[in-house]
Amino acid sequence: MQTAIVLHDRFTALDAVGPYEMLGRLPGAETVFVAERTGPVRADTGQLALIADRTLADVPRPDIVVVPGGPEQTLPTRNEALLEWLRTADAASTWTTSVCTGSLLLAAAGLLRGRRAASHWLSLDGLTPYGARPTGDRVVLDGKYVTAAGVSAGIDMGLTLLGRIAGDAYARAVQLMTEYDPQPPYDAGAPHKAPGDLVDRMRARFTPARSR
Amino acid sequence: MQTAIVLHDRFTALDAVGPYEMLGRLPGAETVFVAERTGPVRADTGQLALIADRTLADVPRPDIVVVPGGPEQTLPTRNEALLEWLRTADAASTWTTSVCTGSLLLAAAGLLRGRRAASHWLSLDGLTPYGARPTGDRVVLDGKYVTAAGVSAGIDMGLTLLGRIAGDAYARAVQLMTEYDPQPPYDAGAPHKAPGDLVDRMRARFTPARSR
Repeated sequence: MQTAIVLHDRFTALDAVGPYEMLGRLPGAETVFVAERTGPVRADTGQLALIADRTLADVPRPDIVVVPGGPEQTLPTRNEALLEWLRTADAASTWTTSVCTGSLLLAAAGLLRGRRAASHWLSLDGLTPYGARPTGDRVVLDGKYVTAAGVSAGIDMGLTLLGRIAGDAYARAVQLMTEYDPQPPYDAGAPHKAPGDLVDRMRARFTPARSR
Repeated sequence: MQTAIVLHDRFTALDAVGPYEMLGRLPGAETVFVAERTGPVRADTGQLALIADRTLADVPRPDIVVVPGGPEQTLPTRNEALLEWLRTADAASTWTTSVCTGSLLLAAAGLLRGRRAASHWLSLDGLTPYGARPTGDRVVLDGKYVTAAGVSAGIDMGLTLLGRIAGDAYARAVQLMTEYDPQPPYDAGAPHKAPGDLVDRMRARFTPARSR
């Protein structure tokens, strides 16, 4: 079994590393970080780069595809080479997954038409023009498509998928070994929980102008 | 303000990327990934490498030091160059922090004597020979020393520290933007929550032979 995590310029690092830390512990499986070119791919803050060990062409038929997101404005939703790779990989995949705005890339590739899908809460509306059905849930399973909400939701997505593939007992073991017993010091991690003025401010500042 | 995240061979990737995703969003701050040499540093699974953009020598006086962990057996607790850098950096730091077994590196550098400290639940006993006081809490603050439990606890540590530095309102904004509203599909993320036989099995398999 092979998992491909797709790096693209200005991806959000935790979107990729959260699922990796869960799915990368699948017994007998290989996890590979792929990009158009091998070598460093810099994340959205500019302060961190991950290495793509293989090119997209090197890994044409992964069993699991994981697509991280990034700031909606700079997402490569018109990168035809990447979209075509996603279509081809998806045609053979067992699971096609995304974290955060990564679902916009799956949608742009035409893979989420008519499907329920999650995304970063500020980018849910961006799914609609592609024919996907935005859903505010943290992890959304629709057939073999598993999409997660923003950034940190990739950990929940990865652990959920690990349970489906390797069984609940195995997933619990990974949860215990990664000590995933979250205790956030605040309770502002979702728009329905955060203070209303904060939600409004973030919406005003970060909602992208959508021009499709 | 400068945050240095220290990469070492076979670090656990989420230990580093969790705090980065929180503290890397500090206003007006710079986050740098450092290691003995610049270039790729491979994580514990072998399946992922992060880039160290600067050497330890390039970054002698960061305001915040973040030390990720890794498998206890391969931790560089006898790497004198690294320990000496930690001592020097700590002498000038505002905050000295760790995730998972990273606290064993701080302890090996002599920085946690008499201090309460967290670590991966399987490695808490490893703190004692260095004179630290192991604590089962997820995030432990003792003076300027902030240590976190295993792997995913670095997210809670980073968000906690962000609140201390930039204020609760700012930390809540980062929590909302990273959608950190965890919903683990299981409740086995800590030894007192996981099934007893699972805890015993993990303890039998992974407790390192300590030979100090």
